[in-house]
Amino acid sequence: MTNKLVPFFEPKSVAIIGASAAPGKAGNDVLVNILANGYAGKLYPVNPKGGQILGIDVYSSIASLPRDIDVAVIILPAAATVKAMRECADQGIKRFVLSSGGFAEVDAAGAQIQREIETLIQERGLNALGPNTSGHTSTPVGFTSTFFPQGKIRGGRVSYVAQTGNFGTHTLKYILTGEHFGVARVVGLGNKVDIDETDALEYLGQDPETTAILIYIESFKRPHRFLEAAREVTRRKPVVLLKSGATESGRQAAIAHTAAMASPDRIVDGMLRQAGVVRISEYSQLVLAGKALSMMPLPAGNGVSFLAPSGAMLAVLSDYCERLGLHIPPMEPANVKRLQDISPSYIRMRNPVDIWPAALSVGVEAAYRDGMEIVLQDPAVNAVVPVMMLTPETGVPDPGFIVDLHKKYPDKPILVAFSGDKGAMDQYKAALEPQGIPTYQEIEQPFAVLSIMERCYRAMNRPE
Amino acid sequence: MTNKLVPFFEPKSVAIIGASAAPGKAGNDVLVNILANGYAGKLYPVNPKGGQILGIDVYSSIASLPRDIDVAVIILPAAATVKAMRECADQGIKRFVLSSGGFAEVDAAGAQIQREIETLIQERGLNALGPNTSGHTSTPVGFTSTFFPQGKIRGGRVSYVAQTGNFGTHTLKYILTGEHFGVARVVGLGNKVDIDETDALEYLGQDPETTAILIYIESFKRPHRFLEAAREVTRRKPVVLLKSGATESGRQAAIAHTAAMASPDRIVDGMLRQAGVVRISEYSQLVLAGKALSMMPLPAGNGVSFLAPSGAMLAVLSDYCERLGLHIPPMEPANVKRLQDISPSYIRMRNPVDIWPAALSVGVEAAYRDGMEIVLQDPAVNAVVPVMMLTPETGVPDPGFIVDLHKKYPDKPILVAFSGDKGAMDQYKAALEPQGIPTYQEIEQPFAVLSIMERCYRAMNRPE
Repeated sequence: MTNKLVPFFEPKSVAIIGASAAPGKAGNDVLVNILANGYAGKLYPVNPKGGQILGIDVYSSIASLPRDIDVAVIILPAAATVKAMRECADQGIKRFVLSSGGFAEVDAAGAQIQREIETLIQERGLNALGPNTSGHTSTPVGFTSTFFPQGKIRGGRVSYVAQTGNFGTHTLKYILTGEHFGVARVVGLGNKVDIDETDALEYLGQDPETTAILIYIESFKRPHRFLEAAREVTRRKPVVLLKSGATESGRQAAIAHTAAMASPDRIVDGMLRQAGVVRISEYSQLVLAGKALSMMPLPAGNGVSFLAPSGAMLAVLSDYCERLGLHIPPMEPANVKRLQDISPSYIRMRNPVDIWPAALSVGVEAAYRDGMEIVLQDPAVNAVVPVMMLTPETGVPDPGFIVDLHKKYPDKPILVAFSGDKGAMDQYKAALEPQGIPTYQEIEQPFAVLSIMERCYRAMNRPE
Repeated sequence: MTNKLVPFFEPKSVAIIGASAAPGKAGNDVLVNILANGYAGKLYPVNPKGGQILGIDVYSSIASLPRDIDVAVIILPAAATVKAMRECADQGIKRFVLSSGGFAEVDAAGAQIQREIETLIQERGLNALGPNTSGHTSTPVGFTSTFFPQGKIRGGRVSYVAQTGNFGTHTLKYILTGEHFGVARVVGLGNKVDIDETDALEYLGQDPETTAILIYIESFKRPHRFLEAAREVTRRKPVVLLKSGATESGRQAAIAHTAAMASPDRIVDGMLRQAGVVRISEYSQLVLAGKALSMMPLPAGNGVSFLAPSGAMLAVLSDYCERLGLHIPPMEPANVKRLQDISPSYIRMRNPVDIWPAALSVGVEAAYRDGMEIVLQDPAVNAVVPVMMLTPETGVPDPGFIVDLHKKYPDKPILVAFSGDKGAMDQYKAALEPQGIPTYQEIEQPFAVLSIMERCYRAMNRPE
């Protein structure tokens, strides 16, 4: 059975009901976004005024549309939505993105309209995303239904499912302006009259463009079916999930947001874990982990090595790793000896690696390059975090050597952190991330992300 | 009894033994730093070659120095340090900053030299910082003994004590280049032959320029005296402490770093808490918390309010607050009504505040300004975090209104977070922080910092 999201993520033709010629209007922004993303399918804007919008011929009525368009994006007041859907259905359109708000999330009248939509969906055999959705994005076909001014949305390997408008709008805006990774598919679930998180998980589970799935959810519409799908998908790709309502305060806030009636959190937690879903607890980790999952392989175990220009950082980060369940394994004697060879004799080298004495002896670049290569070769080490010392006055090495090391050891994730000058940090981020090496501002972040990735690896390789 | 650090932090005259005319040498960088910081006391560089360095007359020998100089900074190889100290002592110099490495942290020969220094200190009644220290800084008098190329060090209200060279070098470099707050005093303890963390705590406890003290430590030289001093100081100002060795991995790394033989961590933890010291567990919090402690008062309780453009963020952050022990109190009915007045009727306003509907109704700036003022006035709210929605396409308000609100409600800390465009976030940071409003990249960070500040408040107000 084909997943019902296929035509949404791979539409050959799209009608925009409520298209507008007025810049700044949602019905205009959605067209601007679609054009900015290079969508090659057919576009059918509908507006009673007719004419052209952004150079595209406008249809003055739904009835005048050609038959069997794949998807209609409806950007009309809630009250006008049902009639428009019915007219579209009469033209053979079976799939809808219902972008407007003003439904069950607002008041009783809105809830009534939403029930009418549900009835129409059942009577006519339709599929719908939303209502009250911030839309969906599919970069492999250059399509988006979002009306939030995003412009070109960078393609990537991770996909997001969010029961919140914030992700597809402001958080995606941050990723596009502040980070260097992109997305494969994004879907804002909205009020979930039809399409829900389980549909999205099933689609993304078999989507060859998606290598990792990140989800924000407040409540499960079909919890048993979701867990069933997750059990299967998580054996093939990482599924990272943030669910609010873990505490009483969060539960109250989630109820206020989407009227989610959450199950007792500990039960949810256990069931998700059994299904191989990796649960996270911080919103910012959707971005921080998404970045590493976009760029790096999973670590094949919890053995980490890190190099820092400070014994204090080594000590504090060792504490941090142990709390996260990351192991800092002893290295093979031959590798310890090689580390010792690039360091002054007074320091006894070990894992984690105090790189400062070596940097003084052989130079910053040589110390990090040789030190990283030695630890990358060690069989007990599954991932490496260099905390780069960056001080322009003492010389900031070209970061290209880290890209080279990743090419040479592509199976072990490298996540980069910094200590020193902010301008040099920004240069490193700008140079490394477009080449597939993730960087982090705070020295703890790569380790928090690695622990998420290591849990994903364990979930994928769990016993039957 | 006057604290022995007084002449170090308020020196009237300083000799630099091992001053150098060669740019890039430690003996040159230290002079460059001192001049960059506008030190107004007398400087006496010593170098056998004589002449001038950076326009300052050089003394060709220690014996030729005038008598009774306050402090000598010795930048010589370890092996030459004892002889130089003895000659300085013959000239009446009683206080030393021993910047070189090569002592007990290196090898048996270095340990032997360090013992000779200890003997000399006792015999001649000297005081010394280090050896193996990254130096100390005192912005109120424009002085620093660091040889790391810092240039001008921004003055501020918080002081740092660190048993690591990294803080006074790379971490301080980050603060100066990536943040907008400054420091009052910084001291790198090094090998602690004489001056230790207790001396530093006692000095900073009575220092009118220091309003909060942040410490990184691996081992306590005089644990009982430290706790005694802490019990007293923590009633007057916050003392925030990061101690590594909380786990076995961290303990091993700390031993490798400074041969610290740590006490069982749980015992240390309990004693610090009883003494009013607020312990933290992440290195980056030294900067993140230092920033808020530099700019904002402590919250007079654990009641927080926050405003975000996303119900999802409200839910996730509510979970996060509950885990941190922060309370999200219900507001007074009159204030709830005022929030309702700026919002559409469909949304039932509460704390935390979903500001998105109000932003759509009355505009982004008016929604945040009025919303923040309402929650700032509520007696149950001790601190406020606005998560600013920043999208250039939908309008980024001038952040001045947040500065105005802080002036109007100076007793309640405001910590700013963001959702949206990275460029606008950077503009907000650059505009707000120089005016005393701290901002944070990740939305969880202000809450982690507030929980530290709230623990400081409780410690200061704990029962006798």
